[in-house]
Amino acid sequence: MDCWVDGQPADALSLKDRGLAYGDGLFETIAVRGGQPLLLDRHLIRLADGCSRLAIAADIELIRAELQSYAAAMGEGVLKLILTRGDGLRGYAPDPSAQGRRILQGNPPAAYPAAHGEQGIRLFPCATRLSVQSLLAGLKHLNRLEQVLARAEWQDSEHAEGLMLDQAGRVIEGVFSNLFLVRDGVLVTADLKRCGVAGVMRAEILFQAESLAIPVQITDISLDQLQWADEVFVCNSVYGIWPVRACAALHWPVGPLTRKLQTIARTLLDA
Amino acid sequence: MDCWVDGQPADALSLKDRGLAYGDGLFETIAVRGGQPLLLDRHLIRLADGCSRLAIAADIELIRAELQSYAAAMGEGVLKLILTRGDGLRGYAPDPSAQGRRILQGNPPAAYPAAHGEQGIRLFPCATRLSVQSLLAGLKHLNRLEQVLARAEWQDSEHAEGLMLDQAGRVIEGVFSNLFLVRDGVLVTADLKRCGVAGVMRAEILFQAESLAIPVQITDISLDQLQWADEVFVCNSVYGIWPVRACAALHWPVGPLTRKLQTIARTLLDA
Repeated sequence: MDCWVDGQPADALSLKDRGLAYGDGLFETIAVRGGQPLLLDRHLIRLADGCSRLAIAADIELIRAELQSYAAAMGEGVLKLILTRGDGLRGYAPDPSAQGRRILQGNPPAAYPAAHGEQGIRLFPCATRLSVQSLLAGLKHLNRLEQVLARAEWQDSEHAEGLMLDQAGRVIEGVFSNLFLVRDGVLVTADLKRCGVAGVMRAEILFQAESLAIPVQITDISLDQLQWADEVFVCNSVYGIWPVRACAALHWPVGPLTRKLQTIARTLLDA
Repeated sequence: MDCWVDGQPADALSLKDRGLAYGDGLFETIAVRGGQPLLLDRHLIRLADGCSRLAIAADIELIRAELQSYAAAMGEGVLKLILTRGDGLRGYAPDPSAQGRRILQGNPPAAYPAAHGEQGIRLFPCATRLSVQSLLAGLKHLNRLEQVLARAEWQDSEHAEGLMLDQAGRVIEGVFSNLFLVRDGVLVTADLKRCGVAGVMRAEILFQAESLAIPVQITDISLDQLQWADEVFVCNSVYGIWPVRACAALHWPVGPLTRKLQTIARTLLDA
């Protein structure tokens, strides 16, 4: 399907776009089923938070309507929205009157092996560490060289995802997923105040856990804590939940809480 | 003047470019005088280092030839080269066979007030801190949201540049410049092993200082050391050297070593 730029079919971008020049923008990757963009409210909440923190002017309701129209036309697949600060003059100074530029791209449904969800996956232990930057932490912004470097660390198909630590060695997330562990019935995920992307599926799982009265901890996680976890899983808004069976020498079983949440995630993504 | 993409006039970029998607690329901003790209060897050395560290395939001699042809056609001004990893598939994994995409953009000569060089400037003390990431330190890559946020901190024309510290409070650089101080006859600049951009003019000044037998220290710099400096200046490969007269409550005179190096920089940029 054709891309749209600011609501119009387009196949190319202005060479002055600040998304290209500086990674000055945000993105969302949205699963589309039956012509509907899934978890749309959560995607738009994160996008609005990003716009506010980066001071990018954007009409979120217009973006909602465009995403819905685009999803209706594509039917099934993965919709990527890139929102940049638009064209720039020379230099870093953002133009306070600039309007965000909306780029919509449609892709076929993600083709991950069903075994990832059924039997679970192995994580590659990435040497690339996430840098600490509270001003950008949590945002799905376009400055993603750390993820590019981390993802380039393995080519084999034995590892479906990579584990990323921060500079201090805290366990943060996957390269394109968030990470949860379960210990003594408590669901634990990393505090993302210093780095990491606050994923839409992560937010949904935290919400579902609360509804189910599952105790939740959002905290700093050490490798030691990961080692002693009863269950580990990764998640994102496209594939849902993958149980994690191993990372380097560490091994975990696929546990009951993982399966319970996986069923919920599957329901949300089969909508 | 028209932009060039991979050697051909173009006004638009593929929407699949990984420079847009992830800031997956590098750039160089090159002064052009009399049809010549200035300090070209140093720009290409840094670019080659970036390509090697990010594993972006690029033919540096082809890029040299293109920069020379483009500069000859533009005559005077500022030439910006963006080198991206080219088009991407979905996901962070870089295609090892991808060739870098070359984008050349011409701009008119920079219009900075002459007073910046003559009387010196005031630095804005940026609250945005540089994050520590040794894998990217020194590179002029396209992940520049920290500079965008820092440059957005001031709008007045009293401040010509901003001072950026790292997360630990070390003095690193300007938003678009490197910083030097002079203390007891020694020229001091920040060690860029954790963060910062290793500027072409910085490299040239270090080289010139060695030729002139001026003692040089490349080290961590504290705000205390900045306070006790005899002279402070910033530099880049477009404007040369600006003496720094003040930053917040700190004040410095314009000193003799600054003037000496400024004369050399001016000669290099008037070539």
